[in-house]
Amino acid sequence: MFLTALDLIGVFVFALSGGVVAVEKRLDPFGVVFLAFVAAASGGIARDVLIGATPPYALQTWTYAAVATAAGMVCYFGYGYIRRLAAPVAAFDALGLGLFAVVGARKALDAGLSPLMAAMLGMITAIGGGMARDILTAQTPMVLQRDIYALAALLGAGLAGGDYLGLPDALAAPAGAALATGLRLLALSRRWTLPLAPLDRDDA
Amino acid sequence: MFLTALDLIGVFVFALSGGVVAVEKRLDPFGVVFLAFVAAASGGIARDVLIGATPPYALQTWTYAAVATAAGMVCYFGYGYIRRLAAPVAAFDALGLGLFAVVGARKALDAGLSPLMAAMLGMITAIGGGMARDILTAQTPMVLQRDIYALAALLGAGLAGGDYLGLPDALAAPAGAALATGLRLLALSRRWTLPLAPLDRDDA
Amino acid sequence: MFLTALDLIGVFVFALSGGVVAVEKRLDPFGVVFLAFVAAASGGIARDVLIGATPPYALQTWTYAAVATAAGMVCYFGYGYIRRLAAPVAAFDALGLGLFAVVGARKALDAGLSPLMAAMLGMITAIGGGMARDILTAQTPMVLQRDIYALAALLGAGLAGGDYLGLPDALAAPAGAALATGLRLLALSRRWTLPLAPLDRDDA
Repeated sequence: MFLTALDLIGVFVFALSGGVVAVEKRLDPFGVVFLAFVAAASGGIARDVLIGATPPYALQTWTYAAVATAAGMVCYFGYGYIRRLAAPVAAFDALGLGLFAVVGARKALDAGLSPLMAAMLGMITAIGGGMARDILTAQTPMVLQRDIYALAALLGAGLAGGDYLGLPDALAAPAGAALATGLRLLALSRRWTLPLAPLDRDDA
Repeated sequence: MFLTALDLIGVFVFALSGGVVAVEKRLDPFGVVFLAFVAAASGGIARDVLIGATPPYALQTWTYAAVATAAGMVCYFGYGYIRRLAAPVAAFDALGLGLFAVVGARKALDAGLSPLMAAMLGMITAIGGGMARDILTAQTPMVLQRDIYALAALLGAGLAGGDYLGLPDALAAPAGAALATGLRLLALSRRWTLPLAPLDRDDA
Repeated sequence: MFLTALDLIGVFVFALSGGVVAVEKRLDPFGVVFLAFVAAASGGIARDVLIGATPPYALQTWTYAAVATAAGMVCYFGYGYIRRLAAPVAAFDALGLGLFAVVGARKALDAGLSPLMAAMLGMITAIGGGMARDILTAQTPMVLQRDIYALAALLGAGLAGGDYLGLPDALAAPAGAALATGLRLLALSRRWTLPLAPLDRDDA
């Protein structure tokens, strides 16, 4: 129950990120709702397809579509308001990141993948929506570019999915979510970034 | 038989849309044929992968590849001619949209999805090819931007896939196809569009 | 053993191509490793998802991730060096192209697809990584644009997957790989390209 609520909060916040981008890219209202759903559900859909759990959960339940539609309409009618809420939205987004990473890693473990690959699928669950959102708007995915986003998801998923530390499951999952969310929040507030590779000359 | 013919007409017309974009993006002849196939088959492939019906139908039959290759070669050798045919092509495209939406929705229902999600998968079947075509050419998908395209597919698929109106199946399918195709044709001829969300300032 | 070594060489070289693009697109170190993995593994992952062989092989083994991580770190720390090695890298890339095309076609045949579609899936295995790399960096995939790349993969995969020539399997596979690799190397060294379609006017 509590987990379901957290999950739907994650869906809502990720959907907001899709809706905001869609409004800025001048999609029509239907496109706004569609991109909101894509941003919220693509990570989990990719995970389910990769582990063979079809149809994906996000397409089996009506709740994802309903929550994403609500978020899309919020963006459509209240774009200016959402923009002013950027900071709280980023905090919720960090929460969604941690939660999705942990849920994704556990599902992958259940499907028989190794802890290392479960961590990778957890990360894909957490960042897949943002990647799909950016691909559909013809941008290099932001989640690969900055601010310790994908890395936070990978570390959290790895902690949640690995028993190598001897943690009981009931502890590993919240610890992983807390690690991913906390690392992301720290990176945001302290403006941590990873150093870019040096280029020989300006041929980017 | 009649349905198969309609299906292959849809494949041909969607493939034309991919071939035209490929020529304009200066792909080589092989790229033109490839993008024609992508535009025609990606929607159905995405649907089949999502419902676990692998290998996808479009990869099991040689007809899709043959028809898409023919369409690609038409675009390669007759680009100028195709461009002048833009209006009739748009009409056929509307026909393909309706047909693919209905076929996709029925397949999803057969796979056990709910009517709501079957409508969504019908829409994905209908617009997936155009989305893949635009993603591969680094554009924001046109089908999300204008002219009541995806929405027409969703409504048609919803009508075809839902028994909530008490329609018998043999009636719901053609009615759904007619709704999607007709709505799209009306939007084209009357230049209907949905209103965009207001931006606070010019930060798109 | 020998095949596994060749396979991992293919993974390494394809991963290098992803890492180089990631550095040039100014992704952070994590993004560099991620894009290296994407470039190396996406073709095989797409093939496995399409034939229903989930979880994909590239996510079941740790070797792909390890080799791609090594290649990504090479790109991150030694970008200038890799750039100077462009010619040898292109030769290895041609080797990877031939190998992946053949492996992909055989896997598809084993999954029950027709020879024609097996050839297509072999091509997807070989070019999918490069396509995913370019899509994630918002470019029209280079593999569709030039230098007889996808076509070489298709022909090699077709030779490897088709028994129509009466070749025994043990001969068809190496012959297919040699055809794809050799054709690609020839196209590179002699600057072969396919002619583009004429445009009526400059409306690209």
